[in-house]
Amino acid sequence: MKTDNKLENKDTILKTKRHYKNFPMVPRVVYGRGSFDQLADILLPKRKNSDAPFIFLVDDFFENSDLQTRIPWLFNDQIIFISADEEPKTTQVDELVKKIKADFDEVPSGIVGIGGGTLLDLAKAVAIMLGNKGSSENYQGWDLVNKPALYHVGVPTISGTGAEVSRTAVLLGPEKKLGINSDFTTYDQVVLDPDLTGTVLTEQWFYTGMDCFIHCVESLNGTYLNAFSQSYGEKAYELCKEVFLEDLPKEEAEEKLMMASWHGGMSIAYSQVGIAHAMSYGLSYVLGTKHGIGNCIVFTHLEEYYPEGVALFNKMRQKHSITLPKNICANLGEEEMDTMITVAYSMEALWENALGKNWKECISKEDLKNIYRKI
Amino acid sequence: MKTDNKLENKDTILKTKRHYKNFPMVPRVVYGRGSFDQLADILLPKRKNSDAPFIFLVDDFFENSDLQTRIPWLFNDQIIFISADEEPKTTQVDELVKKIKADFDEVPSGIVGIGGGTLLDLAKAVAIMLGNKGSSENYQGWDLVNKPALYHVGVPTISGTGAEVSRTAVLLGPEKKLGINSDFTTYDQVVLDPDLTGTVLTEQWFYTGMDCFIHCVESLNGTYLNAFSQSYGEKAYELCKEVFLEDLPKEEAEEKLMMASWHGGMSIAYSQVGIAHAMSYGLSYVLGTKHGIGNCIVFTHLEEYYPEGVALFNKMRQKHSITLPKNICANLGEEEMDTMITVAYSMEALWENALGKNWKECISKEDLKNIYRKI
Repeated sequence: MKTDNKLENKDTILKTKRHYKNFPMVPRVVYGRGSFDQLADILLPKRKNSDAPFIFLVDDFFENSDLQTRIPWLFNDQIIFISADEEPKTTQVDELVKKIKADFDEVPSGIVGIGGGTLLDLAKAVAIMLGNKGSSENYQGWDLVNKPALYHVGVPTISGTGAEVSRTAVLLGPEKKLGINSDFTTYDQVVLDPDLTGTVLTEQWFYTGMDCFIHCVESLNGTYLNAFSQSYGEKAYELCKEVFLEDLPKEEAEEKLMMASWHGGMSIAYSQVGIAHAMSYGLSYVLGTKHGIGNCIVFTHLEEYYPEGVALFNKMRQKHSITLPKNICANLGEEEMDTMITVAYSMEALWENALGKNWKECISKEDLKNIYRKI
Repeated sequence: MKTDNKLENKDTILKTKRHYKNFPMVPRVVYGRGSFDQLADILLPKRKNSDAPFIFLVDDFFENSDLQTRIPWLFNDQIIFISADEEPKTTQVDELVKKIKADFDEVPSGIVGIGGGTLLDLAKAVAIMLGNKGSSENYQGWDLVNKPALYHVGVPTISGTGAEVSRTAVLLGPEKKLGINSDFTTYDQVVLDPDLTGTVLTEQWFYTGMDCFIHCVESLNGTYLNAFSQSYGEKAYELCKEVFLEDLPKEEAEEKLMMASWHGGMSIAYSQVGIAHAMSYGLSYVLGTKHGIGNCIVFTHLEEYYPEGVALFNKMRQKHSITLPKNICANLGEEEMDTMITVAYSMEALWENALGKNWKECISKEDLKNIYRKI
């Protein structure tokens, strides 16, 4: 795995030519309650012609909802409802691309993702694959995308993943769970409407919010951190503490969590996630555990590495009466356990960020097994 | 003055169709010590051909400096050194555009601004005016620019103004001091290299840093504020407190102030500045007072409006042994005083942000005169 976005240690900085990622930011963002209704005006100038549709990929939670009626559907636009019950997959992306190509003669005007991290990552990947050849699994990795994606718009309906602002689209492939990490992945436009997050169920709200909190803990305690990422990470961390430990009015909590997710995603620009994410990737790969809950299940066993973060996490969990599943790995066969460990251990950038260049001396596959067996 | 980027009061929100600014963010940013040396690689793919130059507008503080030798000059590129002793003017922009058009047959590949707020705003305005007809004074206001600007890159060498991230280029015109506030104003690329801020003189460092601090006080205490702007403003405010009240190592202070400026600029997306900026605009217009010091001179007299902010400001001023000029308006003639008040009082959005819709009932021109006479 390449780690081109990492910062060298201070010692090396003085001796080598430094190279920093030229990070793509979302070039357009609208924020505000009700701003979803501006989507029609935003898309209009981007419509190539009446035969080039917009494809709306929407979390099927919103099928037959008020939100569905507000989607600015025109001409031969298509709305595709997708379940977010499972992690997004490369096969799913390839099938969507095939379907869209079969349904339309013209290349679409663009893709709009409406939902949480799953839908947002799917929409990013579909937009990329409509501009690039082959299977999406060939693009899992760093900077493997050569041609621009279609114009794509992200509309988060749940806060925490940071997918709305990140330059990656994390997919479960046949061989790995890994992001399509490229300059073309980032959304061209994001609509941040806190109203849309008002209907989320408590457990999902908590797990996804904790994705942001855990991002921040891992980023702020990582060796890659610089002042740019630190400033975003600290703000997201503070906002998470407010949202999950104080008693904010509902609307204020929705707004602050939406901004926490935004800043938390930005904080990864020059940093990386860490141990919880690496191990959670293993869980997803073998057991299909969803990313948010997977992070939580792992994180609670990482006091040794993130003592302050885990203590705060446990407080938050108790305050919101969240019960995490237990013993999900206790009875796992040796082969599955080995796969899980291999997937997690292969996330080199994450481990190096967490434990430094000599991370293999700090944590062994056996250590991972001991943690997984407790999970 | 239009106030299309403001939020309605809560009461009105429920009754009217809401419209929020679709805010342009800088689409590319590189951050890191020494990142200035990546400028050559960044510009290369943007060069249209060898006859279409890049024009570097550079603060003349850097003439014959090490930085000058590192400017990635190629083919017939042009470096123009400009003094930042005076506020940037519409006439200056028009002259630069005329010179560039006279010097080259081809439209330039782009404009690079290297310096503080003055140079950054000049470069933005020149890039706009090379893509639009007439005099720059015709574009002072909100959304008056119709055609794209040339590709333009901002490289701040002093931190605080937020010009590197904002969608405005503030110019002193024949009739007003007002920004070219448009979607085309924002930089296409920013290079944030904290090394470049290492040579700034203490007083300039303080005044420009206080521009950011005062931004934040005005934004956070304003009626336009929403959660988006609040999150950026709070982070910038915290960073300013660290930089100016704690004893950080020099490098850490440089890095944190660079990020404070960045977030402070972003916090204006959905908010506005306030009383200090309005009154400082009056000072600039009549006396040519530079923006940073002008804000400081005014702000210290605004305890009534910003008690906590002014108390912190005074602590910072004392800690860094900054002596502000006194009595600069005491002997001003009535006519000049009237002009100053008229300019300041005309900044409606700023007053409305500071004091609410009925701001004229809260502060009169006579009140302004009383404050100015003390300055």
